[in-house]
Amino acid sequence: LVLTLILAESSVELVPNEIAHHPAIIASARRKQREPSDLILDQSYHHAAIIRLRNAGAGRGRPDIVHFSLLTALGSPLNAQRELQCFVHTRDDHVITIDSRARLPRNTDRFTSLLEKLYQDSVVPSTGASLMSLSNQTLQTLIERQRLDQVVALSTQGIDKPLEQVADELQHFKKPAVLVGGFPDGHFSHETVKLSEKTYRIDKRRLDAWTVVGRTIYDYEKSIGLKRF
Amino acid sequence: LVLTLILAESSVELVPNEIAHHPAIIASARRKQREPSDLILDQSYHHAAIIRLRNAGAGRGRPDIVHFSLLTALGSPLNAQRELQCFVHTRDDHVITIDSRARLPRNTDRFTSLLEKLYQDSVVPSTGASLMSLSNQTLQTLIERQRLDQVVALSTQGIDKPLEQVADELQHFKKPAVLVGGFPDGHFSHETVKLSEKTYRIDKRRLDAWTVVGRTIYDYEKSIGLKRF
Repeated sequence: LVLTLILAESSVELVPNEIAHHPAIIASARRKQREPSDLILDQSYHHAAIIRLRNAGAGRGRPDIVHFSLLTALGSPLNAQRELQCFVHTRDDHVITIDSRARLPRNTDRFTSLLEKLYQDSVVPSTGASLMSLSNQTLQTLIERQRLDQVVALSTQGIDKPLEQVADELQHFKKPAVLVGGFPDGHFSHETVKLSEKTYRIDKRRLDAWTVVGRTIYDYEKSIGLKRF
Repeated sequence: LVLTLILAESSVELVPNEIAHHPAIIASARRKQREPSDLILDQSYHHAAIIRLRNAGAGRGRPDIVHFSLLTALGSPLNAQRELQCFVHTRDDHVITIDSRARLPRNTDRFTSLLEKLYQDSVVPSTGASLMSLSNQTLQTLIERQRLDQVVALSTQGIDKPLEQVADELQHFKKPAVLVGGFPDGHFSHETVKLSEKTYRIDKRRLDAWTVVGRTIYDYEKSIGLKRF
């Protein structure tokens, strides 16, 4: 029995063409010795360019959210027991598959550079067992291919339910999945909500993605009675 | 009633004199336009220099551990309710006090730069209400000044106790504190253990500091019955 965690509609993407010539992007490209279009969009460095995007680029370019969320997920006892499978779905329909044994860089910029390598080669590392792989895939295709029998989205637009109860429900299925938004603001699209059997709100406050990830995994561990000692 | 979280013996320090002339440090200093001795030691960039330190610098230069732990703590509902107070104690006896309203940078390098500013000015930001402040202080002094009436250390060398029960115990005190190691390997010093009334092991596995922080706060929220909706 494995819990599937999907960071959905995550704010990870390559620099869009429309801002590839912005000075903030060019400076970044020069420093990293990459083409502008091979860079991962990053609020920390491309803020001035991002605000030129539609809707002032609201919530775009936040690889840090995926980074912290994955660090939290991969460091969990559930993952150590090989009972967790993580995927990152992005806003432009890429899916990153992460091996449970992957040890990610601890530094955000190093993680972003790793994503750039991944977008270039579709797999990292380039030799040996793959730790992360990238494909063009919609969330719907991912859900179908993984043969998930229960998909629960966590959203402040969902029905109130304490997370312990959500976790308890999940463990009755053979291959349950939780969708957590990999973005800073806004909500899941209607398509994502439609792909989920249930949408629950676990707290009246908007919580960071990595907090939701950590708490979901912890409550799920308790539900299945994962041994601590 | 406020829970005090202390990241103890954290792997945060300025570059030690003995390696201030190492090429990895000089390169960093040049890039950041700072004196080598004003840099925060950072495994991500100074690895080649750190291994020249005693014991190959085991576990030193990991500001990312403090960064992720604080992001997790400050983003919690407990903190939003102003029922959490965070301190960072470092291995060389500095104490960083963090205001519960502080919004930290999301990028590790930006956070490290903020620490460098903090070590230079003792307080950030330089104008307006202070969000982080730094002082020379031992863990013992911090514990005394904060008038903590219960100090519990979490360590894989402690007595087995499920974290829910640890949290339950804590909430019976007026000003309880939890010590979480802000370092990657090894254990608390004897002095730190002596300063704690209890030392508990919450999992047979060694967990990342930010995972321990997140789970402790979550279980404590449940113990005090923090309202979710």
